[in-house]
Amino acid sequence: MKSSRRSAVAPFMVMDIMENVRALEATGRDVIHMEVGQPSTPAPRLAREAVAKAMSGEALGYTVALGLPELREAIADLYRRRHGIVLDPSRVVVTAGSSGAFTLAFLALFEVGAKVAIGDPSYPSYRNILKALGIEPVRIETGPESRWQPRPEDLGDADGMLVASPANPSGTMLDRAALAALSAACTARGAGFISDEIYHGLTYGAPAVSALEVTDDVMVINSFSKYWSMTGWRIGWMVVPPDMVRTIERLAQNFFICAPHVAQVAALAALQAEDECEANRRVYERNRALLMNELPAAGFTELAPADGAFYLYADVRGLTDDSHDFCARMLSEAGVAATPGHDFDPVRGESFVRFSFARDEAHIAEGARRLRAWLRG
Amino acid sequence: MKSSRRSAVAPFMVMDIMENVRALEATGRDVIHMEVGQPSTPAPRLAREAVAKAMSGEALGYTVALGLPELREAIADLYRRRHGIVLDPSRVVVTAGSSGAFTLAFLALFEVGAKVAIGDPSYPSYRNILKALGIEPVRIETGPESRWQPRPEDLGDADGMLVASPANPSGTMLDRAALAALSAACTARGAGFISDEIYHGLTYGAPAVSALEVTDDVMVINSFSKYWSMTGWRIGWMVVPPDMVRTIERLAQNFFICAPHVAQVAALAALQAEDECEANRRVYERNRALLMNELPAAGFTELAPADGAFYLYADVRGLTDDSHDFCARMLSEAGVAATPGHDFDPVRGESFVRFSFARDEAHIAEGARRLRAWLRG
Repeated sequence: MKSSRRSAVAPFMVMDIMENVRALEATGRDVIHMEVGQPSTPAPRLAREAVAKAMSGEALGYTVALGLPELREAIADLYRRRHGIVLDPSRVVVTAGSSGAFTLAFLALFEVGAKVAIGDPSYPSYRNILKALGIEPVRIETGPESRWQPRPEDLGDADGMLVASPANPSGTMLDRAALAALSAACTARGAGFISDEIYHGLTYGAPAVSALEVTDDVMVINSFSKYWSMTGWRIGWMVVPPDMVRTIERLAQNFFICAPHVAQVAALAALQAEDECEANRRVYERNRALLMNELPAAGFTELAPADGAFYLYADVRGLTDDSHDFCARMLSEAGVAATPGHDFDPVRGESFVRFSFARDEAHIAEGARRLRAWLRG
Repeated sequence: MKSSRRSAVAPFMVMDIMENVRALEATGRDVIHMEVGQPSTPAPRLAREAVAKAMSGEALGYTVALGLPELREAIADLYRRRHGIVLDPSRVVVTAGSSGAFTLAFLALFEVGAKVAIGDPSYPSYRNILKALGIEPVRIETGPESRWQPRPEDLGDADGMLVASPANPSGTMLDRAALAALSAACTARGAGFISDEIYHGLTYGAPAVSALEVTDDVMVINSFSKYWSMTGWRIGWMVVPPDMVRTIERLAQNFFICAPHVAQVAALAALQAEDECEANRRVYERNRALLMNELPAAGFTELAPADGAFYLYADVRGLTDDSHDFCARMLSEAGVAATPGHDFDPVRGESFVRFSFARDEAHIAEGARRLRAWLRG
């Protein structure tokens, strides 16, 4: 047997970096983790208590494909609380993380050979999943002049557009007017519009706007991974147009059967854990403020203006012309792990590094201290 | 936005039937469940205890994409115990259920437009996932003369073949010689060979043979859903040829990031729960013996010779020419849910019904009593 051409996608490099870091730590080396996009905190206490309770003997078999009805209702209610939107729970689909939601959305919207516009830098799995499904990602180069976000005219002749706000790795957001203009451009040419909102809740100024505030003609994707600190649970959701629910349901039945039942139990309880999630967010807020001071002092003077998420994306052209080598040296010499830009931007990645600040404050402060000592001697 | 043509796959009908049954039960009606392919028992006690313990505060973040190393080693050891095979744990990939494994295997092996031979009747998601991925399932009609399994000459000019042993819905198995012949036919033309072994452990005579006993040139797919009674946990695995590990790893990183961490914790403990799993198997064994007597007495005289799994696939041509209507009447009149054959065989499905016997003995005995009373009056 040999591998198909469609499977020759790029690795998700941060996963390989995780493995290098693990190997280094196994030698006894102490490493500061600014590479991975995940909190170091566990799921909220209420979620873990709900799961522990369910271990007394509930069968936890398959749920219906669209998810536990009470979880779909609780997610719909979140849109009322956060965005003032009355959302029909029948449009909410519980998924195996946002990863599962992307597969469903791409299959539901795009034929083999379709083209989907995505602003780079971006989450690398967007383009890798699309390619493996026979869909062509169209790279839109963004930069500081558009706050690292695509514009309506970037849609071109594509069959769809995918946006993220707050974005990974830049942390920048689309405001209501920008989302409305992007959505209108897609609707005007019958293109699919996908809004990745998995960093909602993790904002440090104005709250994030949902695409659902400006249109129903969108697939919104979200997850319990980030704000609710549940990455490894693989639980997320999508909100789909009413006439797409059955399409998504059929695909979900066949591709996933259902999202993990135990993670659905955890997620339902997590939605009650606002205090704990807000406390986590305030940690990231302080980390962000610290790094906004310390990284420029260390020499990282060009940072994207992160409105949300837990990343700072640094233009390192003043420090190196090879961010992969730079990050390897940063790891071995300074003991700080960060992610080179190649994952997020195959063309300009050698000029960028992403720092994640999802750990506790002492950890991030030590990272900043090491970086300053490393670069400033 | 409108749905893609590729997303117009058939629903997995048993999921719709589950929903009808749930609605009937909500009216207060007592229903015997012989429709769904899942145990009514929870995950093994050891698995639930391990999860409850992990709820005390472990972060349970992303694992590496291929799965927890200790789980991969424990799965490799299972092949030593069950099949006398020394298996390199690096070939074991932990997946989000067998569902996740099918997506990975199909993408890794087959281009858009490839053809994959599958014996019908079969698990419906095989063909539905393939179609959505742009791959053409080639239907092989099987029957009693080949014990409901495909033969090497059925490969034809296909680019791959997928077999299941024990099979769903027939329960029949492929012996070592049959697996070797099928594998050799695939290897001879460079076709992909996939062996679905998710009912291994649930056998009632000779143990099941793994395709790994006869070749390394195969993708073996398995799951904790059935023997370990963990359907809703969405945790399974695949064993892949050594030179396909990296291909699968890249796809897994992008499509899934990792299998649910909490389910990996549960699965690792479940592998120690042989006593409980064997006790469950003996319940199915007694249910099977009971139904092999009672179903023919009720009028279901043509049953596939189930070597394993927990299904009996009945040819109902003597009772109806519309198994969908027949099952609807069985549900409303007798209070017994079963699955019409359409899910498993789009061509001959109207002549077949699948009975699942994965519930406790009293439940299945009551089902048999009701069926006899309904048909014999």
